[in-house]
Amino acid sequence: MTYTVEFLPSGRSVTVNEGQNVLKAARHAGLHINASCGGTGVCGKCRIQIESGGLAGGISEKLSKKEIQEGIRQACTSTVTSDVTVRILDAATLQKGQLSTAVPQRNRAGKHLFNIDELRETGLFSPPVEKFFLELPRPSAGDHRSDATRLIHAMTQQYDERHMQIGLNVLRRLRQTLREDDFRVTATLARPVNQESRSRLLQVQSGNWSKRNFGLAVDVGTTTIYGQLIDKESGEILAEGGTYNKQISYGEDVISRMIYAEKGEGLSHMHQLVCQSINEVIARLLARHKVDREEISSVTLAGNTAMTHLLLELEPHNIRRAPYVPVSNFYPPIRATDIGLELGSHAIALMYPAVSSYVGGDIVAGVMGSGMYRTEETTLFIDIGTNAEIVIGNREWLASAACSAGPAFEGGGILHGMRAAAGAIEDFSLDPQSLEPMLLTIDAKPARGICGSGLLIMIAELFETGVLDQRGRFLRSLDNPRLRSGRSGYEYVVVWEQDAGIDQDIVLTEVDIDNFIRAKGAIHAGIQTLLTEVGLSVTDLDRVILAGGFGSYIDLDSAITVGLLPETDTGKILYVGNGSLMGCRMSELSNHIRKDVVSAMQRMTGFELSEVPAYREHYVASLFLPHTDSTLFPQTQARRLQRMARTES
Amino acid sequence: MTYTVEFLPSGRSVTVNEGQNVLKAARHAGLHINASCGGTGVCGKCRIQIESGGLAGGISEKLSKKEIQEGIRQACTSTVTSDVTVRILDAATLQKGQLSTAVPQRNRAGKHLFNIDELRETGLFSPPVEKFFLELPRPSAGDHRSDATRLIHAMTQQYDERHMQIGLNVLRRLRQTLREDDFRVTATLARPVNQESRSRLLQVQSGNWSKRNFGLAVDVGTTTIYGQLIDKESGEILAEGGTYNKQISYGEDVISRMIYAEKGEGLSHMHQLVCQSINEVIARLLARHKVDREEISSVTLAGNTAMTHLLLELEPHNIRRAPYVPVSNFYPPIRATDIGLELGSHAIALMYPAVSSYVGGDIVAGVMGSGMYRTEETTLFIDIGTNAEIVIGNREWLASAACSAGPAFEGGGILHGMRAAAGAIEDFSLDPQSLEPMLLTIDAKPARGICGSGLLIMIAELFETGVLDQRGRFLRSLDNPRLRSGRSGYEYVVVWEQDAGIDQDIVLTEVDIDNFIRAKGAIHAGIQTLLTEVGLSVTDLDRVILAGGFGSYIDLDSAITVGLLPETDTGKILYVGNGSLMGCRMSELSNHIRKDVVSAMQRMTGFELSEVPAYREHYVASLFLPHTDSTLFPQTQARRLQRMARTES
Repeated sequence: MTYTVEFLPSGRSVTVNEGQNVLKAARHAGLHINASCGGTGVCGKCRIQIESGGLAGGISEKLSKKEIQEGIRQACTSTVTSDVTVRILDAATLQKGQLSTAVPQRNRAGKHLFNIDELRETGLFSPPVEKFFLELPRPSAGDHRSDATRLIHAMTQQYDERHMQIGLNVLRRLRQTLREDDFRVTATLARPVNQESRSRLLQVQSGNWSKRNFGLAVDVGTTTIYGQLIDKESGEILAEGGTYNKQISYGEDVISRMIYAEKGEGLSHMHQLVCQSINEVIARLLARHKVDREEISSVTLAGNTAMTHLLLELEPHNIRRAPYVPVSNFYPPIRATDIGLELGSHAIALMYPAVSSYVGGDIVAGVMGSGMYRTEETTLFIDIGTNAEIVIGNREWLASAACSAGPAFEGGGILHGMRAAAGAIEDFSLDPQSLEPMLLTIDAKPARGICGSGLLIMIAELFETGVLDQRGRFLRSLDNPRLRSGRSGYEYVVVWEQDAGIDQDIVLTEVDIDNFIRAKGAIHAGIQTLLTEVGLSVTDLDRVILAGGFGSYIDLDSAITVGLLPETDTGKILYVGNGSLMGCRMSELSNHIRKDVVSAMQRMTGFELSEVPAYREHYVASLFLPHTDSTLFPQTQARRLQRMARTES
Repeated sequence: MTYTVEFLPSGRSVTVNEGQNVLKAARHAGLHINASCGGTGVCGKCRIQIESGGLAGGISEKLSKKEIQEGIRQACTSTVTSDVTVRILDAATLQKGQLSTAVPQRNRAGKHLFNIDELRETGLFSPPVEKFFLELPRPSAGDHRSDATRLIHAMTQQYDERHMQIGLNVLRRLRQTLREDDFRVTATLARPVNQESRSRLLQVQSGNWSKRNFGLAVDVGTTTIYGQLIDKESGEILAEGGTYNKQISYGEDVISRMIYAEKGEGLSHMHQLVCQSINEVIARLLARHKVDREEISSVTLAGNTAMTHLLLELEPHNIRRAPYVPVSNFYPPIRATDIGLELGSHAIALMYPAVSSYVGGDIVAGVMGSGMYRTEETTLFIDIGTNAEIVIGNREWLASAACSAGPAFEGGGILHGMRAAAGAIEDFSLDPQSLEPMLLTIDAKPARGICGSGLLIMIAELFETGVLDQRGRFLRSLDNPRLRSGRSGYEYVVVWEQDAGIDQDIVLTEVDIDNFIRAKGAIHAGIQTLLTEVGLSVTDLDRVILAGGFGSYIDLDSAITVGLLPETDTGKILYVGNGSLMGCRMSELSNHIRKDVVSAMQRMTGFELSEVPAYREHYVASLFLPHTDSTLFPQTQARRLQRMARTES
């Protein structure tokens, strides 16, 4: 059920699902309500009055009996149960239309790739491992063909499959298998990358198992291992889920894990930890569905270059040392058990190739999964994390680079930064007069800190309302208790201790903002450098694709306002979520992608930004909000001036 | 040194090597000297008198002092030390010119294949595994290629090698290997069967090892494992040698081993035994040469279909059961260690494919090694053993069949039959009047029995001199102590007990002769049937190639006289010795053979003789000496009549 909530005095209304809380409803309507505890009912500021209709909840000791009788409620704990009209009492109702686009639009192109019917129609639906049911003629006096030849001939006659290799393991069981169910068998065939090469017969089972063909897609992340169980017949995802990468106990970043891997049995240990993590995910996925371990015939994995090396037990030593050379960018198809995966001995593991030490298989998987390598549209693909990997190109050419952003977007180097977990401030707006915030926390828990996407919005909002200047400094002229000189310099108090879920004020310091600006500056400079190197400018981009968790949640306008993303029509910006996982799923459903990836990699130029002189200049120019050169952000500039003017009036 | 020996009264002379014994010299001259102890000086019959020149030895207690002074010697223990003229004293000196061709002529075509220069000139010299020395550019700020890409690019630039696969094992060691000798490395590359497929990088070593590339050729025989160590750079055989197949303790024939393999761990045990035997041969070959186990990069093996199955641990159950279906006729390239060979982990094992359950990889190797599959000449290739495998064809077509000859040619089913070992009678001629034999035994040891090639000569000689009739019966009319009725029927005493190396008379019985006739009949019928099936007759054969130990040693005239081989110009008959081994060596030196073998197999029609009605008729007609239809053997017939007439006169 959906209901309409009308807010007075602005008269704006918004349609929300039953049970939505009114603070979030206001947020969706682009309205500010002072709410400085993160929506947990503690601060008691977000008072509204019911004018018609009704609400559930919203009552606490912060309200008097009389107030309650008058229909006054706390917005953050009130939930919508019918059409309702409410009046915002305490807050300035600022026009915040731009926030209505806070949730980035979905990437249609990405979704298209998962339209199984379209994959089938275009002939692209062809899993790398397929199963075929065969009824073979029995040997007889006139027919002395060997068991293997009999099988191959049947594959040719019944399915037009030719030129297949049969390994010794299959041959060793073949005699018995053929005779267990009177020469009725299911053959499991692994496709080669190139059509000219031979297919490989992975397994022969007695009886008909042709509909039981499953695969796994696994994103081997530095932090999280995330997998999908895929039905390769229907193309559907049967289950998905993840777990922490157990390597994390040896360091959150890949560098410390690579250092550990260089010592003694370190590499083998790192390999085992990531394997264990993947095996845990596999076990969970299988447990959720009636799929046997032996029914998995292939798994496609993608990770950054360091993670890939650790998983395959390749020595990562030179990845982190200039001139940053991996052992290999391409990885052969591997027997899954050879890298420690707990699957049947026939199962194959396909590993996405890397571009370089710092543009890894996870990015390549995203590029492939997004389809940008095969469209005419020039696309900027960007995966923002500790490192930001940037790929620009189209079906003619591709260019890539990685820049070290640092951990600011994941809450690192930020005094009250935290991961996007319960209690993290994920949304923020500001009453420019009182400097009172409107906060929303994850799971509406008492605020414990600021996550990356929250930080982005906060800085954008402070900047747009003129509280922060271009250099990221708070306006010293503002006299407000929330702006003060703290231990780490000048700071803004986001949440007072009494409203917070921790035993201190939650603040945003100028040091935090500096760190943030350096991070966003590195990324913006990367984009600018890559564009310059290929002779393009921002206006030449037809699409921007954001990959990764951070990219999925960020407010695009904020991202442009601070100069993280170049100023472009936000309608061109799409997001793909876990691009790596999407690419892995693609590979499990469409063997063509494996050939495509080879040719895409041949068209891809990898840039090492530290070796491009212009990068340093772009970086220094990007250490402003949004940028030294404000002509690059004309609309942002205009909107800020407009908001500041309104505030002052 | 060579000397001339002149024999009186015939005046024939022969040139022999220094140290040759005079009995053998007489044999080479085509002269008969009674010598019934096999040339050990025991019977004292082979007396000669020196007329001029001198001899060493030849003196025993059988000779009086006076006789010795007169220059009388025993031929069998006299050795030639100068030009000499001797007179044969006791023996009738029969004209036996036809025996001068007793040693089959060599197969020039076969030798051609081992002319390394010619292989090189025709571009056919290309081992399946090659080594390449590379000096790679070091990684630098402008050159971030991965270790693997760096290597592949160098292979392309320096050797025009493209499209290679690198396995995980090579990648895992690559970083260190490249840096051990400053990016100077040797790459070991395995060629695919088809040029379109990718090569496989088996190994990378630091430093220059490109000249240390060795291979093994191994004939996996039912009785003997025989191997050659091959320098793949020069093409030369560095060492060769063999050992018994340890499986022999579970039965001399393959059938009993296959039966054993069906029980419990029998297959695994059979596999281990043959592996141990091969490993023993490998160890011996390596010990003889300064070649390290790790320097062997490939091994090509060939064996009959049952042996191949036992070596690869493929279930042989249906090979011996109608309709006689092997698990597979083709075998993938295998990591040598995967089948238990004690070689480096990078070494590959190539196994010759089979045609059917009874025409195995050993025969295919022989066909390939002999080159018959690529000449215009229509060739009959025949490998005679317990089973005789027959291949007829040329570069346009090939037809094959196997017939069960039984063990007669290996001494089985023959009362005094034995293997070709010391003391085995290997040559025989007969004084048709006295029925006294001239015997030669292997190693000139006291006679202990009759080996296959000796049996063949003996039966041919007895038949040609009219002592045996067409049905293989001794002429009852002959009154001679050497012809008598024995325990197993009528028999000829070849060696009296006092002259023998065993405690009884060595005899040849009519039962023995029956067994022999059935064996030769099966083979002759096989040849006739195959010729009929392809619409040819004996006169259409341009060449006959004999493979196998037996084929190498038999006297061609005897073989034709008894009807084992069809009557044809003996000049057309060649022998290749161990054809299987030759084919394996070919494969180690010329990768083209692997592609050729696939297309040859596609042109090959395998006949199952038991299913060809005409075979039975041909067989019954072949149970005579030489054949029921004597018009098939006109020259044999004529020669016999001529000899018999001379004897009677």
